[in-house]
Amino acid sequence: MSLTVIPVEGIPEIEPGDEIAAEIVARVELRDGDVVVVTQKVVSKAEGRMVAVDTDDPSTVKAVVRQESVRILRQRGELLLTETRHGFVCANAGVDLSNVEKGWAVLLPVDPDRSARRIRDGIRARAGVEVGVVVSDTFGRTWRRGLTDVAIGVAGVAAVVDLRGTLDARGRELAVTEVCVADEIAGAAELVMGKASAVPVAVVRGVDPAWLREGSVREEIVRPYGEDLFR
Amino acid sequence: MSLTVIPVEGIPEIEPGDEIAAEIVARVELRDGDVVVVTQKVVSKAEGRMVAVDTDDPSTVKAVVRQESVRILRQRGELLLTETRHGFVCANAGVDLSNVEKGWAVLLPVDPDRSARRIRDGIRARAGVEVGVVVSDTFGRTWRRGLTDVAIGVAGVAAVVDLRGTLDARGRELAVTEVCVADEIAGAAELVMGKASAVPVAVVRGVDPAWLREGSVREEIVRPYGEDLFR
Repeated sequence: MSLTVIPVEGIPEIEPGDEIAAEIVARVELRDGDVVVVTQKVVSKAEGRMVAVDTDDPSTVKAVVRQESVRILRQRGELLLTETRHGFVCANAGVDLSNVEKGWAVLLPVDPDRSARRIRDGIRARAGVEVGVVVSDTFGRTWRRGLTDVAIGVAGVAAVVDLRGTLDARGRELAVTEVCVADEIAGAAELVMGKASAVPVAVVRGVDPAWLREGSVREEIVRPYGEDLFR
Repeated sequence: MSLTVIPVEGIPEIEPGDEIAAEIVARVELRDGDVVVVTQKVVSKAEGRMVAVDTDDPSTVKAVVRQESVRILRQRGELLLTETRHGFVCANAGVDLSNVEKGWAVLLPVDPDRSARRIRDGIRARAGVEVGVVVSDTFGRTWRRGLTDVAIGVAGVAAVVDLRGTLDARGRELAVTEVCVADEIAGAAELVMGKASAVPVAVVRGVDPAWLREGSVREEIVRPYGEDLFR
């Protein structure tokens, strides 16, 4: 079965209080089983997760980053690598100044799984289709250069699919195969979004129907403090 | 522009000396600009990168892992987190016992960028099309549970696309936007492969033509020792 990744063009600038689900269903005909990927930036804006900062004074931005963090892991120049209250480890606690009015910083949603559920429920109510939703953000990686989009919240789709205990093509039991399909879906969506072209939504059509269950980034992806080997 | 991810079904068991390009072009009609993703396992098998191990004696496997590593970063139970000679940081130096005859372990290709170029050249010679090739493998991540497929070698397609200095939708210069498209392409391909269903090849059709330049995982993605914040 092939998979199709469809950019949703024409989403307007999102303002606090806007309903993203309405903007999406007005622009794309969704089908049951589609997974709708929405970038964090528009989700945070719709939820009013913005604070005023003096962008010419890095210390005011840094104060916001510290406020959004439970732990500073590393610091290099202007970059703070922190753990957010959600348990995400990312640059500057996900606080972002790009694609926003000068003088404002966009924070991560308080509960991105809940944000995803709200969009999923809105799409269900407006279009009568059962879709998965992934809220995505752009994170760096410890050992690899370049950023990729990953899932920070999901609804109606698994975050991690556990294939442990199933058999490989030779009938040998697979040792460790917990696949983070939500991150792969987020990354696939990013391929049609482009950072500068302002396409904040994409539809991934054709994922394995077995993945379409209630999921949670917080419960399935976030590695509890102390469980990783590097903090 | 939509993106399509097409699994290539019916690839037979690959043996040392087999030409993967021939198996691919016999089963899918490729177009200029397609990116062909091939999992490391079949690439390594074609290249004869297998060693005999006593799978009932973990110490023989561990000896192979150490041989393939330049550095042991962490150890937890049976898992060694190591840096390979390529500079990849991954579990057990990428040495894998699944989807292989009992008594054998599969090692990573010696030079996965070269492996990708060989497949790309073979496809060009046999089918007369200019494609990108990504050799993918399944790696864990420091801060997130679940594995994702990433690129360990590329040819004819960028590994990292540098969007720094371009403008965002509001005309504000993007601060840091080096996107690792090769990893996102590898992950997208994994979504149609399935770990247990033995589909080792997928075609990603519709990527931005600007990405179709000569690329290199070694030069673009591998973070030199000491540049990361955690080793």
